[in-house]
Amino acid sequence: MITLSSDFGWPYPAAMRGVIASDSDARMIDICHEFPRGDVRTAAFWLREVLPYFPPSVHLVVVDPGVGTDRAVLAIRAGEHALVGPDNGVLVPAARELGEPFEAFELGEFDAASATFHGRDVFAPLATRVHDHGVASMGALEDLEPRQDISSVEFPTPVVEHDTVHGEVLVVDGFGNAITNIPGGHVTDRLGSGVTVNGESFPAARSYAAVGPGEELVTIGSHGNVELAVNGGRGDVAFGVEPGDTVMLAF
Amino acid sequence: MITLSSDFGWPYPAAMRGVIASDSDARMIDICHEFPRGDVRTAAFWLREVLPYFPPSVHLVVVDPGVGTDRAVLAIRAGEHALVGPDNGVLVPAARELGEPFEAFELGEFDAASATFHGRDVFAPLATRVHDHGVASMGALEDLEPRQDISSVEFPTPVVEHDTVHGEVLVVDGFGNAITNIPGGHVTDRLGSGVTVNGESFPAARSYAAVGPGEELVTIGSHGNVELAVNGGRGDVAFGVEPGDTVMLAF
Amino acid sequence: MITLSSDFGWPYPAAMRGVIASDSDARMIDICHEFPRGDVRTAAFWLREVLPYFPPSVHLVVVDPGVGTDRAVLAIRAGEHALVGPDNGVLVPAARELGEPFEAFELGEFDAASATFHGRDVFAPLATRVHDHGVASMGALEDLEPRQDISSVEFPTPVVEHDTVHGEVLVVDGFGNAITNIPGGHVTDRLGSGVTVNGESFPAARSYAAVGPGEELVTIGSHGNVELAVNGGRGDVAFGVEPGDTVMLAF
Repeated sequence: MITLSSDFGWPYPAAMRGVIASDSDARMIDICHEFPRGDVRTAAFWLREVLPYFPPSVHLVVVDPGVGTDRAVLAIRAGEHALVGPDNGVLVPAARELGEPFEAFELGEFDAASATFHGRDVFAPLATRVHDHGVASMGALEDLEPRQDISSVEFPTPVVEHDTVHGEVLVVDGFGNAITNIPGGHVTDRLGSGVTVNGESFPAARSYAAVGPGEELVTIGSHGNVELAVNGGRGDVAFGVEPGDTVMLAF
Repeated sequence: MITLSSDFGWPYPAAMRGVIASDSDARMIDICHEFPRGDVRTAAFWLREVLPYFPPSVHLVVVDPGVGTDRAVLAIRAGEHALVGPDNGVLVPAARELGEPFEAFELGEFDAASATFHGRDVFAPLATRVHDHGVASMGALEDLEPRQDISSVEFPTPVVEHDTVHGEVLVVDGFGNAITNIPGGHVTDRLGSGVTVNGESFPAARSYAAVGPGEELVTIGSHGNVELAVNGGRGDVAFGVEPGDTVMLAF
Repeated sequence: MITLSSDFGWPYPAAMRGVIASDSDARMIDICHEFPRGDVRTAAFWLREVLPYFPPSVHLVVVDPGVGTDRAVLAIRAGEHALVGPDNGVLVPAARELGEPFEAFELGEFDAASATFHGRDVFAPLATRVHDHGVASMGALEDLEPRQDISSVEFPTPVVEHDTVHGEVLVVDGFGNAITNIPGGHVTDRLGSGVTVNGESFPAARSYAAVGPGEELVTIGSHGNVELAVNGGRGDVAFGVEPGDTVMLAF
């Protein structure tokens, strides 16, 4: 199975699907092609959350603002999974979840038909070869060379101080839920009562519908982290936060 | 075959695809993940229109504003199809089309990894089990219990009075066509001439392009209902209507 | 394999998938359902760029503002590929790339359940029949008649005059790259230095990231044509152009 992820929107993902289908019978499943354009960090977050739900697969990931520059082309083996994409850090948080220690390889010299669409011309063909050759033995592909230092996206660790946790908003999902880096365990005891967020009190609850329509709440999202949300509305707007903003939780 | 529908946008549907692919070789086809967030009624309408075009399948439907509350988790057998989703009415209009009388089951006690993403943690695993076990014998799954009363979404019936039909707009599609609850039969005789909509006269025609570009028309949509449209434009804007608004057709 | 393309957005493509799946085990791959509504020209451009990356397939294309009028329903054999869609020119640029000379057939009289959704009622069933019957012998389908004159979308050829090329913007992609009809060969020698676009000088470079974030550049896109772009931004906005606008390149 090959999964496909990108920030392409339409119609470029179809060219990648065509390239793969031309050389392989691999099953293809789209993860998402709507990652914010060039936003390596947001893509890295979501891939870390979603890819571990897949059976052993080759994950083709093309969020690649440096396309055509000398950034390396990587294939990573992580457990029974492989990830193929640019060396800009987007692959690493997911790789750590899929199997640590992971092993990285760099594609040696290659010809690309274009310098602007390596998804089609470089990454999709490489993902297909890794898939058909077998993830376990991908190191035997002669144009893959072991590579030690690769770029990584790192998410900050929240800081705990007395009865306060200083974290930040990592991403906002399509519902408007503001997802923080604060582990849900910090609010488990408060579910049903409340917490203070950036100085203001809010109910903490297990589910969105535990508060009235349009009301704010603090909950634990499906990723296990603290989430600022509104029942049937947008948490990012109601809490006035966006990715990178500080979230100070007090109890 | 398992079909997937939700109001998730991206990237949450991919987690459901991963969960299914981990346990089953079932073919997966996406119906739509762009239903308006939390809009059970609109999703119910479109599922009723689209699902009957599928061969026998398990239809996973997650438009679930009550996620994590005590709303039941349902599996419905309707003809050779199954529907899996929350007990909020979203499944029922489609179930009636797929096979009546349909039979409903409730999932007994279950553990969910999250209280905010039952699509991934509860519904997708249940749909997979129903699929692999077989729709015909789904009642034999030991954690499914027959259930009599379930929630339903009901669409209003238009009222006919002399030469006037009082209906309403049910949904607006992406083209801007305002789809009413008025059966197309009411305007069949008027195609090629005209009808009065909320007091104003408009041409009635079989196809959009029967009127000039940018002109309003009344037509019979692919669902068999009267539709307020504009050739190459948005009917909802031109007619000034949105879902729930009254439409009074006179002849 | 059957590929699906349309300007439907959601949820109408699912009805086509259901119709195909009801009659065939054909693998289905979505190309794009987000083509601008009714924009035959843009769809024709992208299909010409993307479809040649696919292995032999039946390509179902429904961008059909004339649905329900007397425009013909076409099936085209081009090399080992087939294209099925309306006779409005949308199929032709791709057909020329897939195999010339191509051969066109018209569907004879047919019954359609609706006059507004031939994608579901006419084109999808025809694509399925062509697929299952075999592209090579599609002419043997008894309701297909050879057809000589069909509509075509033609893209203009740029005019070269001394050291100036007069072209135009054909489409703008989702990143905001303004894609012209000017072959990349005209700027190959200028990569690394610069060119004049509509009287103003800009750097010309092989990759977006060759200029600073937010800076304009002229590059050669993955389609081989000259593209007006911004590194990490929208070229159409920065250059002030939209499809159909003149682009005058000077060296």
